[in-house]
Amino acid sequence: MAATGSLEDKLFQLRVLAFDVDGVLTDGGVWWGAEGQESKRFCFADIMGLSLARRAGYEVALISGEDSPLVDRLALKLRIKHVSKGCRDKATALRELSTSTGMALTYICFMGDDVNDLPAMQIAGVSAAPANATSEVLAGAEFVTKNTGGNGAVRELVEAIFAARGMSASAVYTEASEKKGR
Amino acid sequence: MAATGSLEDKLFQLRVLAFDVDGVLTDGGVWWGAEGQESKRFCFADIMGLSLARRAGYEVALISGEDSPLVDRLALKLRIKHVSKGCRDKATALRELSTSTGMALTYICFMGDDVNDLPAMQIAGVSAAPANATSEVLAGAEFVTKNTGGNGAVRELVEAIFAARGMSASAVYTEASEKKGR
Amino acid sequence: MAATGSLEDKLFQLRVLAFDVDGVLTDGGVWWGAEGQESKRFCFADIMGLSLARRAGYEVALISGEDSPLVDRLALKLRIKHVSKGCRDKATALRELSTSTGMALTYICFMGDDVNDLPAMQIAGVSAAPANATSEVLAGAEFVTKNTGGNGAVRELVEAIFAARGMSASAVYTEASEKKGR
Amino acid sequence: MAATGSLEDKLFQLRVLAFDVDGVLTDGGVWWGAEGQESKRFCFADIMGLSLARRAGYEVALISGEDSPLVDRLALKLRIKHVSKGCRDKATALRELSTSTGMALTYICFMGDDVNDLPAMQIAGVSAAPANATSEVLAGAEFVTKNTGGNGAVRELVEAIFAARGMSASAVYTEASEKKGR
Repeated sequence: MAATGSLEDKLFQLRVLAFDVDGVLTDGGVWWGAEGQESKRFCFADIMGLSLARRAGYEVALISGEDSPLVDRLALKLRIKHVSKGCRDKATALRELSTSTGMALTYICFMGDDVNDLPAMQIAGVSAAPANATSEVLAGAEFVTKNTGGNGAVRELVEAIFAARGMSASAVYTEASEKKGR
Repeated sequence: MAATGSLEDKLFQLRVLAFDVDGVLTDGGVWWGAEGQESKRFCFADIMGLSLARRAGYEVALISGEDSPLVDRLALKLRIKHVSKGCRDKATALRELSTSTGMALTYICFMGDDVNDLPAMQIAGVSAAPANATSEVLAGAEFVTKNTGGNGAVRELVEAIFAARGMSASAVYTEASEKKGR
Repeated sequence: MAATGSLEDKLFQLRVLAFDVDGVLTDGGVWWGAEGQESKRFCFADIMGLSLARRAGYEVALISGEDSPLVDRLALKLRIKHVSKGCRDKATALRELSTSTGMALTYICFMGDDVNDLPAMQIAGVSAAPANATSEVLAGAEFVTKNTGGNGAVRELVEAIFAARGMSASAVYTEASEKKGR
Repeated sequence: MAATGSLEDKLFQLRVLAFDVDGVLTDGGVWWGAEGQESKRFCFADIMGLSLARRAGYEVALISGEDSPLVDRLALKLRIKHVSKGCRDKATALRELSTSTGMALTYICFMGDDVNDLPAMQIAGVSAAPANATSEVLAGAEFVTKNTGGNGAVRELVEAIFAARGMSASAVYTEASEKKGR
């Protein structure tokens, strides 16, 4: 929340989009099997949203408190280079992201859903949360999506960032497809 | 949207029903396990809907951007012959479907839920979308179902097409069962 | 719907409770994995409901159109003896259940959610459907639960049957536990 | 419900938090695969809630009617020492918990969702239930959460207990993190 100006101005300035994983890119659920198998639910609307953000030139980062191979899988699928797993101090991780991308925190947004995300949200250029974040996170976020985590919250943030630049998801998609086609 | 006339007229004319998979025949979710296992959720109301459509003489097709063995599995279960996987250009896939079925695009509907479905929706005889499609798809679809993807959206479209012909799902089911019984 | 009298009278008379599986004891979903794994979601409120019905002296039966080992698993877990799988003609299966239990159809209820359940619903003493059944099934059912399939619809029917006899789930549970304890 | 005084007074007094598992820490669902695999869905908001409760000095216990290895997995992940599985008499299990922790029942709360939880709820210092508990449990619980089981019901109870002590989840999180950091 370091940046000044309207939310739209702040969204316009963003260059790096950082996300907590559980509860933000998933619905917060974890399916456990008897032999210790673990699975989580992601959704294609969000996956497409991150893909479009990357194509539009944004850097994308994952900062997760869990130390799960699923984070790597998501990063691989979406070609995300900036990944912090098993993270106990997300504010520090966000500052490191600022260093590694060469972008001041003002240009970085962070979306989280629980109390361990608050320190990173407090220093991010824009702080965002899905509709079903815990109460203190909802109170602390500048941008709360209508959609819940794992069900379009990330996509909604990405489209709001696009809108601040006068872009639409379909225009970004079409442009990226045409570039590939050339 | 090439066809003219009322939506009911267009639904009446349809002979081929083409569907995106993720977000249309599923809820858009993808469950990932730590060792790379992937699963998706389909529903029996939709599966029955596609089965009834096939029994009523409609050609059914799947056009998916994902290159997943799950698409083949669904096609096998429902005896769907027209399958396009890992598709980067769904409009071209729909034109190829028109050629392979010998049916003009006017007689083909396409149901999609995200921006990569829009080009195919724009040339289909009828364009449809589930209630939870992304905003630009909802704006671009002629027929938006009350049900969400993977939860009866496909069934609702099939029943609307049946209704345009004065048929009901139960009548199609009974007739098909009696034919088998003979 | 062969029985006459009020719904409560009919519920009072019931001795055998027969259920479709997919969409009734599950939410209608089927999770498919890439290697053909299949899983379905049941819920403990329904499982407890069937267990209480059995303890209260009701016969419980499953009549499923799918030929899935999951039906056997459910039957084993709940000690259900009457199981019909891969059933193409549920009315015939219900008549066979009447014969094997020695109970006239008037004393048997059937809960279903799709058009292939309608023939059995039409001859059952009481026909029931979950809130999210397909439209023709909702129109044809005498008892529509507030709960959806796989989320308490079966439990709600069982408690309504108990209520018609002046029994509560907790009383049945307590009585059965005390009998075991002796 | 042995304690007297307002609910807030009772919440203030609590020292031990005991939970049923299915329908309380999960959404009540059980996913079954064809080869007998079983999985259940937990959520991170609840997992964080239990972790914060433990850090704030509360004893946490699981009392489950199911005899599932998933209960052990949850206990291991959250370092919960008090675990009762395959429990047929939850009131007795709660009394044993009172003995093993050296805390009178007045200081112990129990959250359950079905009729087999009622005997334990009736002797607990505070009885709680998720929004989607069965009707008799909702009627018998002193504290009914707005959230449903497996979707924040446990977290909501934990935060209410914190609030009765003038604590917030973020304060507990921060304090615990700082202690670790020293």
